Amino acid sequence: MGGDFGPEVTVAAALSALDRNPDLRLILVGQQDAISPYLAARDLPRRRLDIQHASEVVGMDEAPAHVLRHKKDSSMRVAINLVRNGTADACVSAGNTGALMATARFVLKTLPGIDRPAIMSAMPSLRGHVHMLDLGANVDSPAELLLQFAVMGSIVVKYLENKPRPSVGLLNIGVEDIKGNEVVKQAAELMTRSNLNYQGYVEGDAIYTGDVDVIVCDGFDGNVALKTSEGLAQMIASLMREEFGRNVLTRLSGLLAMPIIRAFRDRIDHRQYNGASFVGLNGIVIKSHGGADAIAFRQAIKEGVNEVKQHVPEHISEELSDMMRAPDQ
Amino acid sequence: MGGDFGPEVTVAAALSALDRNPDLRLILVGQQDAISPYLAARDLPRRRLDIQHASEVVGMDEAPAHVLRHKKDSSMRVAINLVRNGTADACVSAGNTGALMATARFVLKTLPGIDRPAIMSAMPSLRGHVHMLDLGANVDSPAELLLQFAVMGSIVVKYLENKPRPSVGLLNIGVEDIKGNEVVKQAAELMTRSNLNYQGYVEGDAIYTGDVDVIVCDGFDGNVALKTSEGLAQMIASLMREEFGRNVLTRLSGLLAMPIIRAFRDRIDHRQYNGASFVGLNGIVIKSHGGADAIAFRQAIKEGVNEVKQHVPEHISEELSDMMRAPDQ
Repeated sequence: MGGDFGPEVTVAAALSALDRNPDLRLILVGQQDAISPYLAARDLPRRRLDIQHASEVVGMDEAPAHVLRHKKDSSMRVAINLVRNGTADACVSAGNTGALMATARFVLKTLPGIDRPAIMSAMPSLRGHVHMLDLGANVDSPAELLLQFAVMGSIVVKYLENKPRPSVGLLNIGVEDIKGNEVVKQAAELMTRSNLNYQGYVEGDAIYTGDVDVIVCDGFDGNVALKTSEGLAQMIASLMREEFGRNVLTRLSGLLAMPIIRAFRDRIDHRQYNGASFVGLNGIVIKSHGGADAIAFRQAIKEGVNEVKQHVPEHISEELSDMMRAPDQ
Repeated sequence: MGGDFGPEVTVAAALSALDRNPDLRLILVGQQDAISPYLAARDLPRRRLDIQHASEVVGMDEAPAHVLRHKKDSSMRVAINLVRNGTADACVSAGNTGALMATARFVLKTLPGIDRPAIMSAMPSLRGHVHMLDLGANVDSPAELLLQFAVMGSIVVKYLENKPRPSVGLLNIGVEDIKGNEVVKQAAELMTRSNLNYQGYVEGDAIYTGDVDVIVCDGFDGNVALKTSEGLAQMIASLMREEFGRNVLTRLSGLLAMPIIRAFRDRIDHRQYNGASFVGLNGIVIKSHGGADAIAFRQAIKEGVNEVKQHVPEHISEELSDMMRAPDQ
């Protein structure tokens, strides 16, 4: 039912997405009574917009196992069912990440050859952006799983970004003594022997220097990197506001510098990067940030559209075994 | 012999530190011929400044095991020997982190009850700063080691910051489904039963919100958080420069906003936070960033002075067992 802000945001985003993309059809899934008010008195593209009622709501803190067992008529379950039965090509949700992932895995299943799906997202970098996975679906991932993530990431970027051989880096740490734990070392070996365009280890700063197209890591580390970045960006924004708001003079120079600050902010606006993909499933599921506004949620819808157009799951299925195979085998 | 920039930076920092602190005595350890030119024609506080010749230099990429075996007259080995034999109270180095840690462990040994030393540093936060460990000395740390890190971090902050009961958070990830791996869950249990002021799990953004005084994590995750932050901060600085440098007008507003941007930058200046502590050793060793300038390196010296004044290793020794013990045992 739409993350932290509910249908107010998601319905607004849906209508805006329909306006911008005449080929798009959307099904709003959720409690009809909660959705309808946001549609009233609007000039709706009726043939491209449906409502699918779902009676239950999944709370942002509900345990995934509980949701899976007891919330069979929740909006996320119904929406993912629509993907499974072919009524919808993709599901986009701002709901509880753990519950969405558990439901998606249970209903859609993973693709053949994939042990577990991963959460993948683009992040802004100095040279455009970098795609990173896993951002939190799997902890203690063994080396074989990291290889699967690398292959999926590489295939997704190949089609979404039209890059024939995306470069792949494996997240590691820089202290020479102890360069990497055992799992990372094993994963590096597997990637070296694969058909990936594997570039070796990268450190956390590579996310923002953009040295590679895809960064692969365990979900614990990916989530730490993501949340640390969010925290730092928020602190920088707060401190900037504080300094520019200090007195009349600082506010005046803030006003003068506003177009520049805005141009800068637009380049790293996290809303542009909203919409993480659950890769490795037999279907397309996009997770929006729970706190997304309408612009951010529309971006998540766009991400879903792109994956549908590019047949991402089909390509993963087709190219997986070839990518995993070593060139000399 | 002084990190990326050698004695030019470290000697300048040493002289500046001596100027600022009349109680300080420093021994410059390294190749006499390389150091002397930077001392010539300066008015030196001769009674507070010595040179201890060391013939060998450890390269920034040399393997720690090789350094330990073959570089017995390197500046870092000689400096740490001075700490062991009581000639010096602390060692400050901008050299190869892995080699410095291996040498420090070998020469000084860990304190009783400590299995492995950790790298600890302060990071800027919205409410002052947060201390974090381990930042990269140990990967795959078991729960008992994380507890030792927590206790050491808590004792260091107690004395350096004069906070009787520093709050401690354990780094974890936010996806409910899979909240933490097994080790983190076990560590949380140990910390709950200890005498720590343990506040529970924190996510990566807590580094910058400053919700707790000490954040504990495995060295892999700590290093990822640190390097990711460095990368993001550098990207933001680069993009700001680019936007303000775009044309005459933007350069002009950049000039007007300069005092504000400088005030902002000073608040998060990484040089203020230079000087990571190797905690858990039988002696004080401070690691400066390899790329430190003289201001940053002087800060690392100051960090060493503070730890000496506060008798940090002694307090860890004395209070360790009491902090580890559960209140009801």
